Amino acid sequence: MIIALDAMGGDLAPAELVSGAVLAKREFGIDVALVGSPGAIREELSKLGEKPSAIEIVEAAEVIQMDEPPVQAVRQKKQASINVAMGQIKSGSAAAVVSAGNTGAVMASALLNLGRVKGTERPALGAMAPFTEKGILILDVGANVDCKPSWLVQFAQMGSVYMEKVLGIARPRVGLLNIGEEETKGNELTQEVYRRLQETNLEFVGNVEPDRVPSGVADVLVTDGFTGNVAVKVTEGVADFIFSQLRETLTSRLHYKAAAAVLRPALMQMRSKMDYAEYGGAPLLGVNGVVIIAHGRADSQAIKSGLRLAQEAASSGMLEALRGALVSPDRDGAKENRETAGATSRGETTA
Amino acid sequence: MIIALDAMGGDLAPAELVSGAVLAKREFGIDVALVGSPGAIREELSKLGEKPSAIEIVEAAEVIQMDEPPVQAVRQKKQASINVAMGQIKSGSAAAVVSAGNTGAVMASALLNLGRVKGTERPALGAMAPFTEKGILILDVGANVDCKPSWLVQFAQMGSVYMEKVLGIARPRVGLLNIGEEETKGNELTQEVYRRLQETNLEFVGNVEPDRVPSGVADVLVTDGFTGNVAVKVTEGVADFIFSQLRETLTSRLHYKAAAAVLRPALMQMRSKMDYAEYGGAPLLGVNGVVIIAHGRADSQAIKSGLRLAQEAASSGMLEALRGALVSPDRDGAKENRETAGATSRGETTA
Repeated sequence: MIIALDAMGGDLAPAELVSGAVLAKREFGIDVALVGSPGAIREELSKLGEKPSAIEIVEAAEVIQMDEPPVQAVRQKKQASINVAMGQIKSGSAAAVVSAGNTGAVMASALLNLGRVKGTERPALGAMAPFTEKGILILDVGANVDCKPSWLVQFAQMGSVYMEKVLGIARPRVGLLNIGEEETKGNELTQEVYRRLQETNLEFVGNVEPDRVPSGVADVLVTDGFTGNVAVKVTEGVADFIFSQLRETLTSRLHYKAAAAVLRPALMQMRSKMDYAEYGGAPLLGVNGVVIIAHGRADSQAIKSGLRLAQEAASSGMLEALRGALVSPDRDGAKENRETAGATSRGETTA
Repeated sequence: MIIALDAMGGDLAPAELVSGAVLAKREFGIDVALVGSPGAIREELSKLGEKPSAIEIVEAAEVIQMDEPPVQAVRQKKQASINVAMGQIKSGSAAAVVSAGNTGAVMASALLNLGRVKGTERPALGAMAPFTEKGILILDVGANVDCKPSWLVQFAQMGSVYMEKVLGIARPRVGLLNIGEEETKGNELTQEVYRRLQETNLEFVGNVEPDRVPSGVADVLVTDGFTGNVAVKVTEGVADFIFSQLRETLTSRLHYKAAAAVLRPALMQMRSKMDYAEYGGAPLLGVNGVVIIAHGRADSQAIKSGLRLAQEAASSGMLEALRGALVSPDRDGAKENRETAGATSRGETTA
């Protein structure tokens, strides 16, 4: 099984990407195909003391920059590294793609080259909130800013499949991110989604208020892409703020410094655990292939984790399960059955 | 000037409320009217070693519980402490109200008893984000979950007036909470609000991504009540999570404990600075009176701060400025003028 890595995407590309691929090969024996400029990739390999042939290289003549309009760039630059990487899935050469590039571009490229899983209304971008050991999958976190209720129901189904198949959670608890616990709380969207989620066969645990997310009451949190993106960015901003305050506090007095030195390793470990990059990446769900999006600032360790995650996802049967979940009788069929049954029973009562 | 305090509202009522009023009187000489059950209030006063006559008591025969449907409760319980407190403003007996009770009830009561400032489409609930010395006013944080663009423009105007008049910021920078920096980013609502904010005479600094909020790039952050509520609750949840992790880390090993003991005062100070309650409360803007909503868990110190904030707001001319701001020629007049000018110039061109 080969994982295609977009070697040119991300703030630290190609150095950390190539280095991450080398680590994944060494530590986990993962076969990676580095997609990008062969010259630049070989240069990085040689810096790492690796032979140019150590890892497969797939040439891509173009690169999409972080500040380009993503959809346009993906369409115009057919030979962009992300497009070539997606092509590796399409041709059957690779089982999954990992990219730390522009999220919009990765999504546009996945839709263009792979299309959607049958039945998917919208693909959703996930993020792993770093509060529990396995992480909490929040989706959507930015692929769809104005959402319809049916999309969020699908996000719930897709997220549940992902957490079950890839992270081995038998029956993932699905929560709806909302501003109150009660069924009647929230905006029009969440009120309607609440009603619909109750009708699914998912393990729906109801509304989850944002301050309760860290306590791990749900494995999957469903939200529209605007709110999800805000939630993820507030988390990052607050964590950065607190740790910078902490740093300032610990160095503000001489006798603090000595105490801080003792604690430094523990604090740094704590900080790294709070990092969204810790899990290696998050899935783009609903596209017809396994696509893992790593953080734009992902370093070699994060890329290594992302590649392992991609391999696990590709061999988990996640995609096949997704194909079943979105058109499963548990959803459409069961609902139809219930409605039919209801009609019959009403018919009988009035007859 | 008398500030009416809803002595029965909040998780720690009436004890911490009464105690907060005593502190405000002692430390700042603020005249407080405690609104609630005279028996319960006198009992608390006596526990504090105060005479029953130390602080004015205004009798209210009913109390609204935190779990009651707020609008209904406010309408049915005319003698609820929050209604009686609002009545003190209406009758001219008090200059402002402070309450730590159910936010929905406070808002409903303010609307019922005081009405809106002329021109206000919707009142907005503010929260002070605890990242800068003066705080950053985020609004709306829950009064209006599904918002129209014009409401957010008014939130910006009201927030700007509040920060100028009450916190003394000469020309408050107004940001739009959004998921990208560029003008084209965001959902339908934020895209439209961006366009409209550019046309106001406010100091509009553009979109502010949630992870940049702590850096203090804006004094006022405008958002819909759903997103604002999520942002505030994520902030609280993440801060709680990090500090509980910190506590766990610092007590996980024996040699950490000694170091932690040295740092404890500094860490506790840091924690309290990160508390939304630190600023005493946040305004309910757009209602026809000065209303400060304190945190539901507000203790006596927070109530004391809330009472001082209310006094400052009441004497700041904030309400008068609000009355002017929402119907000012800078907004409606100027826009009308522009439109007229545009029509004329178009007329001239085609004629």
